[in-house]
Amino acid sequence: MALIVAKFGGTSVASPERIKNVAKRLVKMRQRGDRVVAVVSAMGKTTDELVGLAAAINDNPPLRELDRLLSTGEQVSMALLAMAIEALGYKAMSFTGRQAGIETNGTHNKAKIVKVHNERIMEALACGYLPVVAGFQGIDENGDITTLGRGGSDTTAVAVAWGIGADVCEIYSDVDGIYSADPRVAPRARKLAQVSYDDMLELSSSGAGVLQSRAVEFARKWKVVIHSRSAFTEAEGTYIKEDSQMEEAVITGIAHDTSEVKVTIRGVPDSTGVAAKVFSGLAANAVSVDMIIQNISEDGFTDISFTCPEGDLSKAVDTLERVLPEIKAREFVVDKDIAKVSLVGTGMKSSPGVAARAFSTLGEHQINILAISTSPIRLSIVVDSAQATQAVQVLHTAFGLDSDSVFEETQLSAEEIAAKMAKGR
Amino acid sequence: MALIVAKFGGTSVASPERIKNVAKRLVKMRQRGDRVVAVVSAMGKTTDELVGLAAAINDNPPLRELDRLLSTGEQVSMALLAMAIEALGYKAMSFTGRQAGIETNGTHNKAKIVKVHNERIMEALACGYLPVVAGFQGIDENGDITTLGRGGSDTTAVAVAWGIGADVCEIYSDVDGIYSADPRVAPRARKLAQVSYDDMLELSSSGAGVLQSRAVEFARKWKVVIHSRSAFTEAEGTYIKEDSQMEEAVITGIAHDTSEVKVTIRGVPDSTGVAAKVFSGLAANAVSVDMIIQNISEDGFTDISFTCPEGDLSKAVDTLERVLPEIKAREFVVDKDIAKVSLVGTGMKSSPGVAARAFSTLGEHQINILAISTSPIRLSIVVDSAQATQAVQVLHTAFGLDSDSVFEETQLSAEEIAAKMAKGR
Repeated sequence: MALIVAKFGGTSVASPERIKNVAKRLVKMRQRGDRVVAVVSAMGKTTDELVGLAAAINDNPPLRELDRLLSTGEQVSMALLAMAIEALGYKAMSFTGRQAGIETNGTHNKAKIVKVHNERIMEALACGYLPVVAGFQGIDENGDITTLGRGGSDTTAVAVAWGIGADVCEIYSDVDGIYSADPRVAPRARKLAQVSYDDMLELSSSGAGVLQSRAVEFARKWKVVIHSRSAFTEAEGTYIKEDSQMEEAVITGIAHDTSEVKVTIRGVPDSTGVAAKVFSGLAANAVSVDMIIQNISEDGFTDISFTCPEGDLSKAVDTLERVLPEIKAREFVVDKDIAKVSLVGTGMKSSPGVAARAFSTLGEHQINILAISTSPIRLSIVVDSAQATQAVQVLHTAFGLDSDSVFEETQLSAEEIAAKMAKGR
Repeated sequence: MALIVAKFGGTSVASPERIKNVAKRLVKMRQRGDRVVAVVSAMGKTTDELVGLAAAINDNPPLRELDRLLSTGEQVSMALLAMAIEALGYKAMSFTGRQAGIETNGTHNKAKIVKVHNERIMEALACGYLPVVAGFQGIDENGDITTLGRGGSDTTAVAVAWGIGADVCEIYSDVDGIYSADPRVAPRARKLAQVSYDDMLELSSSGAGVLQSRAVEFARKWKVVIHSRSAFTEAEGTYIKEDSQMEEAVITGIAHDTSEVKVTIRGVPDSTGVAAKVFSGLAANAVSVDMIIQNISEDGFTDISFTCPEGDLSKAVDTLERVLPEIKAREFVVDKDIAKVSLVGTGMKSSPGVAARAFSTLGEHQINILAISTSPIRLSIVVDSAQATQAVQVLHTAFGLDSDSVFEETQLSAEEIAAKMAKGR
């Protein structure tokens, strides 16, 4: 008899057939005695299509109008899911972000939640309804519709779970949990029964894309238990919650990310304020700089490297072409063929020697280290992208993460998902 | 320097290209000094597609959820049109039905407007915005989204025009006004400069489909001037407003309608309450009965005929199969090949002999009259559908409606419309 928030993403509601399957799953939860609130994303690629329509009309659409446009996607799926639940003989009621009491600031297109009013949802639950909430959207103090940014439906789910005091926020997707590494890269990866908020945050921001970082941050702050699980099986997934273990494992998992590029500025005069000029220029141009590495200076000159998403590269190049003459640096070079491999684990803090073991493991396998950065619970190493898979595998083994069994493919194509859903469960 | 409400239907906003053209047209109105509020329908076939999605999920969807679903269509087009106006350098702001202050009763799916709050639109106008209002939708007293039924955007436009005290409510479509008859049937039909509310109501409900009857009723009640005009030319269309002429023309126009069927019940015992049983049964089954004709009784038996939309025929047949044994009538027969030709004109009231002239005109041309019904300003005659075109033409001539020039095609196909819009204006 739990109170559960269950969030279903765009793939799970991409067609009438799939929406009916989600309804069946929710009704099953009700039948076993749980109270459930559903949170849904827009159907399939709807949000992309709406963005495309806007782009065809205005290169730089006013954000207030863009939010009003994008928020219709979730309003379609919430209404359809409520209809599907009613078709099974259960009372359902859909809620826009406004009606669900998701109050945000006025930063259109990436609004932040400032308050959650739970009254209407609690009332609907009390009257025997299965509430269905539109993810991704809220309302600002002027009564204008806002959206929370890409992947914002996870954040909605966690916020609603907090607002109604749910026992757990279940996030259903096409993967069945959090793994010690990407199983497609490391076939001996293990599904983790539990991950701490801190570890999950580092994993999310290091390329493990199952959960939105922002949703995890919200959950950590307000102590909401997340259960990341498969939309296609009944198997338990991974719980993300506060660490309750007396002594943690040193390493929880290994993430990798091939979506970044490395830029190196050569021959930078080693004087005060130079790095500030570079990085404030990049920030002003909205380049998301990830790692920054500055080598020891030689003869008054140094090299500065940084990594950023490949999508930000043209903005980074623009910035550097402007800034370089100013700081009198020699040149810059771009390396696209890199991968960032990150070891993550809260236990790392109290276990010296993690870095040493990682470096020597890579060295034994002739994997060249291009850059390093660390946090108290993360060690990220940039390697040549051709060696990324091997790096993940040898580190996975070296830190005792390997499972006894070899992983079978659980990442499904859209067609396989459709086939599974059609079969029902 | 007029205050104008301009309503654009689904065909006019069916693609980004067309939305841009509507924006250009609105901006032109602003540039010549008018203040404008736009009202839009959903893009192209969006509403049909949403209804299809709902039908695939639930045979009998809860109407509250259906309204929430359908209302997204207009929310997409309002946001896109606002973006298109901003792209031309003018400030625009979109309004949902709720934000535009359209308050309705709680009859989901065909709600009636009970109040119009004009504050937010007036404020936006005062601040130099071009407001864009989502048609077809409102909000009930519980704050739930309602829709006004098919074609409800015309009604929204008239209601908004009344709410803000607009000088005129312009309804743009792919026809350029109201004609004395359907020009495809009567090539000498004339475009009318002006039609009274009463005549327009009779024309609309007799098969002239340019304007929604409900919108005309609203306009008549609250004295809103409608201007029905083409979305593709600058030419004046037809004004619908209170009659200001001292002496009216006898006949304003001729409408025809081939979408009805005639049902005749034969051998009905001529006793009290029999007709009541038939028509209360039909009403209970939601059959929209139009004309009712009962012949003089012979030998204690009579025939009762009625017409109804072809779409209601199966419900009518169901009802009659149940009611006939009860009232001990002999049989019923259905005639699908009929057409209703209606002469409409406020001047008819004070001009005796209209019916006689109509009947003798049809008789001269060997057109057989199958049924007749009248109102003070309308004379409807049912004829064989094969003779409908001829009936319209000869009546058009007999009542002096023919223009000197022969009509050129103004009813465009979707492709022709697209071509015209692409050329811009």
